[in-house]
Amino acid sequence: MRSERGLLIVLSGPSGVGKGTVRKALFEQEDLALQYSISVTTRKPREGEVDGVDYFFRTREEFEDMIRSEKLLEWAEFVGNYYGTPVDYVEQTLQEGKDVFLEIEVQGALQVKKAFPEGVFVFLAPPSLSELKSRIVGRGTETEEVIQNRLRMAKEEIDLMDAYDYVVENDEIHLACERITSIVTAEHCRRDRVAKYYKQMTEAE
Amino acid sequence: MRSERGLLIVLSGPSGVGKGTVRKALFEQEDLALQYSISVTTRKPREGEVDGVDYFFRTREEFEDMIRSEKLLEWAEFVGNYYGTPVDYVEQTLQEGKDVFLEIEVQGALQVKKAFPEGVFVFLAPPSLSELKSRIVGRGTETEEVIQNRLRMAKEEIDLMDAYDYVVENDEIHLACERITSIVTAEHCRRDRVAKYYKQMTEAE
Repeated sequence: MRSERGLLIVLSGPSGVGKGTVRKALFEQEDLALQYSISVTTRKPREGEVDGVDYFFRTREEFEDMIRSEKLLEWAEFVGNYYGTPVDYVEQTLQEGKDVFLEIEVQGALQVKKAFPEGVFVFLAPPSLSELKSRIVGRGTETEEVIQNRLRMAKEEIDLMDAYDYVVENDEIHLACERITSIVTAEHCRRDRVAKYYKQMTEAE
Repeated sequence: MRSERGLLIVLSGPSGVGKGTVRKALFEQEDLALQYSISVTTRKPREGEVDGVDYFFRTREEFEDMIRSEKLLEWAEFVGNYYGTPVDYVEQTLQEGKDVFLEIEVQGALQVKKAFPEGVFVFLAPPSLSELKSRIVGRGTETEEVIQNRLRMAKEEIDLMDAYDYVVENDEIHLACERITSIVTAEHCRRDRVAKYYKQMTEAE
C-alpha cells in the first residue's frame, strides 16, 4: 500500500496552542515515516530557530515573488507576517509514495483543504481556552493588545474546527504525538483507500 | 471525552484469517482500554479454548432460546454453527463510557452495522488469498470439501469489505494489533465526535 501516492497530513490550530512544539516532538521519533514540509515565512526567527530547518525565512519582497510565480501551495498573512508552503516539494514527495506533514496556521490549512480535499486535516486544540491564554501570555514578549488580539483570533479559529477530520487535544505533548501517529496509521487502513487493492487481489486468484 | 458513551469496535473478516489470534494478542496488551465482548456459540471448543473466556459454548436449543427472547445483538449460522453477541453486556458497557470490542463473523458484523451504524467496523484481511488457503488447510482437521467451501465463502466475504470503515492486513500479528489500536485512538479524535465538546468550552469562557 505504501507504493501508492502518499498522504498529505495537515496539522493546524489556534496561535499559541503548541503546533511547533508538537511537530518537533513528533519528528524526534526515529521510526516516524513522515516527510516534513518546511514552511516559508516573513516573520523574524525566534531564539533557537534555524533557517531551512524550522522555516525558510524570507523578506516580504521575496515572498510576494513566490506568490506571483505560483510557487506556494497555500499562503496567509497572520499577525502581520506571511506564511506559505512550497508546492513543488509537497507534490514530488506525495508522488514518491511518501506521506507529507504540514504544520501551518488555520488560514493556510483551509486553502490546502480546497486544493487537497483528500488530505488528512488535524486540528490541534488547547485543553482549555484559559490555558491557551496563559500560553500566549507566557511567551512574555508581547503587548497586552497583541495578546488580546491573538486570543480573539484563537476563539474564531476554534469555530473553524468543522473543516477538519480530527481534533487532537494538546494536553500532553507525548499524548498529542501518539494521537497524530495513530491517525496516520489509521488513515492508511481506511477501507476506501485499500479496498480496491484487495478486490484486485481476489480477482487475480 | 472518555465520560461520553463508549465506541463499539467490531473486528471481522473471512474465516481462517486469524481474527481470534489477533484478538488474543490485542488483549495481552496491559494498557489496552477495551472491554472484550465474549460471543456465544454452538460450535465445539477447539483445543485450549475455555468456556466463558474464548466463547460461551451453548447447545443449539439454548442458543435458539436466546434468539427468541431477543438476548442477542446479532447472530449467524456459519459452517453449521450459531454465533452471537449478548446484547445486555454490550449496551451496559457502552453506557459506562467504555469501548467494547467484538470479534465476530462477517454475517454478524453486518447485522451489528444495521443496529449500530455509529460503530467502528474493521475488516481483517489476509495478505493474499493463497496464504488464506494455506491457513485454512493448515488447521489439518478438515475435509477437502469443507476447505473448498470455506475458501469460496472467504472470496464472497472479501466482496463485503465495502461495509467496513477500515481494512487491516494481518501480515504480522503485532502489526495488525498496532493498526487496530491506532484506529481506536484515531476514532476518539474524530472531529464529529469531539467538536461539540470544544465549542461548548469556548462559549463557556
